[in-house]
This record gives sequence, C-alpha cells and structure tokens, in this order.
Amino acid sequence: MKAELLYEGKAKKVYRAETATNQLVLSYKNDATAFNGKKKANFTGKGRLNNEISARIFPYLHENRIKSHFIQRLNETEQLVYETKIIPLEVVIRNLATGSLVKRLGIAEKTSFNPPLIELFYKNDDLDDPLINDDHALLLTDVSYAELNEIKAKALEINTALQELFQSIHLDLIDFKLEFGRLADGTIVLSDEISPDTCRLWDSHTKAKMDKDVFRQGIGDLIGVYEEILQRLEAR
Amino acid sequence: MKAELLYEGKAKKVYRAETATNQLVLSYKNDATAFNGKKKANFTGKGRLNNEISARIFPYLHENRIKSHFIQRLNETEQLVYETKIIPLEVVIRNLATGSLVKRLGIAEKTSFNPPLIELFYKNDDLDDPLINDDHALLLTDVSYAELNEIKAKALEINTALQELFQSIHLDLIDFKLEFGRLADGTIVLSDEISPDTCRLWDSHTKAKMDKDVFRQGIGDLIGVYEEILQRLEAR
Repeated sequence: MKAELLYEGKAKKVYRAETATNQLVLSYKNDATAFNGKKKANFTGKGRLNNEISARIFPYLHENRIKSHFIQRLNETEQLVYETKIIPLEVVIRNLATGSLVKRLGIAEKTSFNPPLIELFYKNDDLDDPLINDDHALLLTDVSYAELNEIKAKALEINTALQELFQSIHLDLIDFKLEFGRLADGTIVLSDEISPDTCRLWDSHTKAKMDKDVFRQGIGDLIGVYEEILQRLEAR
Repeated sequence: MKAELLYEGKAKKVYRAETATNQLVLSYKNDATAFNGKKKANFTGKGRLNNEISARIFPYLHENRIKSHFIQRLNETEQLVYETKIIPLEVVIRNLATGSLVKRLGIAEKTSFNPPLIELFYKNDDLDDPLINDDHALLLTDVSYAELNEIKAKALEINTALQELFQSIHLDLIDFKLEFGRLADGTIVLSDEISPDTCRLWDSHTKAKMDKDVFRQGIGDLIGVYEEILQRLEAR
C-alpha cells in the first residue's frame, strides 16, 4: 500500500501511497513527545490507539459536513489520506483555560471562554512554535485574509461537533489543536490528526485528565487512558 | 504645580496636578531600562530630552487631528496631561522588521511591511509583556471589539503622521510603541510618551540608530543622539 517515506514527524511517518499519486499513508508511531520535543518516551500501543481514535473522529466530522484529508483506515496503525500542503499554523481552540495559556497570560485556571478562544501558533520547531496574531499569519503563510477567517470559522464548527461527540461519551473537550492543509486544487481542508495527543479531554464526572497531559505531567497510565477513550468511542 | 506622587514607572513619575483633579504631571526621569528592566542605567539629561521631544510631538499630532492626553510642557522635565485610565496594551507598529520580531518569527531583518504590521502586547511586568492576539486583548482589557479596531486605525494614522514628521528631519521611523488610555468620559486617547525611548529611528542617510537601541546594544552616546533629535525637531 505504501511506497516512499516522505517525512517522519514526532508522532507519525508519512508515506506516498502506492495506489494514487495524490494520496498518502499516515503511519502512527508509539513515540510521545511534549514541550516541543524536550520530553520524550515510547508507549507500546499508542500508535494503534491514536490511529483507531482518529479513524473514528474524521468520519464523524464528515457526517457533520466537515471536510478533511481522511479517506479510510488501512490497518491497526495506518490510515489513507489525501495529500495536502500543510499550512504552517497550529490552530488552538480553548473552551476552558488551562496549560500554557494560564502561565502565559495569568488567566485563572478553568476560566471558561464563550465564544471559545482561538489562538494561532506558527508551526516552526526552530522557533518553538511561537504564538502569532492574524497579521503575522498573513505574512508567514500563503493564506489570504478571507481564508484565515474561513479557517477560524471552520475551527469553531469543528469545536461544536467535537464537543457533542465527546459529551456523548462523557468527556469534556477543554482545548485542542488543529492543522489545515491545501488539496491539489487549492481547497483548504482539515488535516493532521485528532486524538488525545492533540485534544485535552477531562472525564465529565471525575474531571480526570484523559489525554497527553497524563504524559506531560507524569500522572498516570497513558495507554490505559487512551484505551478507555477508544472503548467509549466504540461503545457509542 | 504637583501634589501627591501617584506612581513611579521605569521612565517617569506621575503626580496629581494641584490645579485640577483630572490632570497629572508627568516627570521624565533620567533612568534608562531595557529588556523589561533587566538592563538599567542613568543618563543625566535624558529626562529633559524625552520631555522636550514628546512636548513637540504631541502638539504636532494635535495639529494632525490626533487627540492625546497632552496639555502642555511645564518645565525642562515635566509636562501636564489629562488623567487617563491606561489600557494595559502596548500597541506596536512596525514599518521595517528588526529587533524582537526578527528573532521571534524568523522574519528577515529589514523586511518592509506595507501595510504596517500591528502587534499587541499585554502590559504586565510579571508576565514580561507577552505578545497577544485580538481575542486575548478583549479578554484581558475592558476594550470592546469596535474600540480595539479604532485603536488600531488610530495607530496607523499616528504612524502616517509620525513618518511625515520624522522624514522632514531625515529620520526613518522603523517601529514604535503606543499606549492608549480612557479619559473620565470613557473616550480613548493616545497616552504615555512618544520619544526615542519608544520609537526606533534611523538616520535616513547613514541609517545610524538614533534611539534607545544605542543603549540596548551599547553602541554609542545615548544623550548625544537624543540631543541631535531634539535639535532637528527645533530646527524644523
């Protein structure tokens, strides 16, 4: 199914698909990294869990008329996607204040945002993915002003859809990171992954952290938590 | 003329004016600080120069229909202003890339911005005045969306007026920082100071730095440079 390795990222390998020139195979790895790669570990089963979880989330978003690069699950750790040229923006949506935001701006932990807070970060490892404003985004990427507004509107739609999904399995969606990419025809679609690596999810009842913060903060069994999320999605 | 000391900042002391309850006396200090107070020094004459320079710039802006807190020069180091409640935003306008922007975003030195680049920083010493986006500004201050857009439009008008002023005395306005405040009736006006402490100015011919970078970078005679700017403004 897969041919040449195009790129190896922190959490995924990207291969050219053998079947079609405009398709890629994403192979989810067991590596976990945090703090821009400063903390690293390997968890047997993590690649499978993020692949299985995201392979359920993207089709759910398609049902909610949100286009993405996702085509289909291939096997336990791999999925087929349309090739996109990734826009070097991390689009972060926050429903509740926690993490870096609290330290950076002194906003009280658990402040709720209505409307949700949108933040843009410039995807650049050498610069430590700095926060940027809209004017910076227009300078640093090829997106137009109208496209940037579309991306933000789409991110808010995705937030609403994901909140409904996670609420149905008793998880609060605290915040999450999205990436967008351009298809060959220039259309901008949701890309990358949506998983407990890229979302903060708290159990709705116990408020226990059920995401990569378990690793970032060293507070529990990452695989057990990701397995629980997959099971809840499957039982839905 | 002045009564109670209300506040001592890095570069100015602020007194209640004896004459009217809604007026303040700004007393410019000889202290220079950089890198959020990490580098400090004292330059005899700096307070006088910044007071004299800003006491020429604010009336020039008034002539260009840009309202500010400035009322009049009182003496060598002091000026009378209307009291405002300062909005905790540093509004930075950049015509040419240099300084922190270049390091932060990897933008090439001397990249020119047209339209000028606007950046907002949250005025908070404990947090090191972090860069923020518009949504953060609405959360962290009492300004409305419409007021934020007015502030940005006003900052661009000020940029155009200042570019004309400085061009006439053979200085390129590279970037500068503004602060705005609310008068008792809620109106937002330009506040704080405009001086070589808050503007990057390069000689139009030699491109020599004629601003606080002389101190930040330890590359010359700060007082000589500020004196030269005052003389050019006086000879205008």
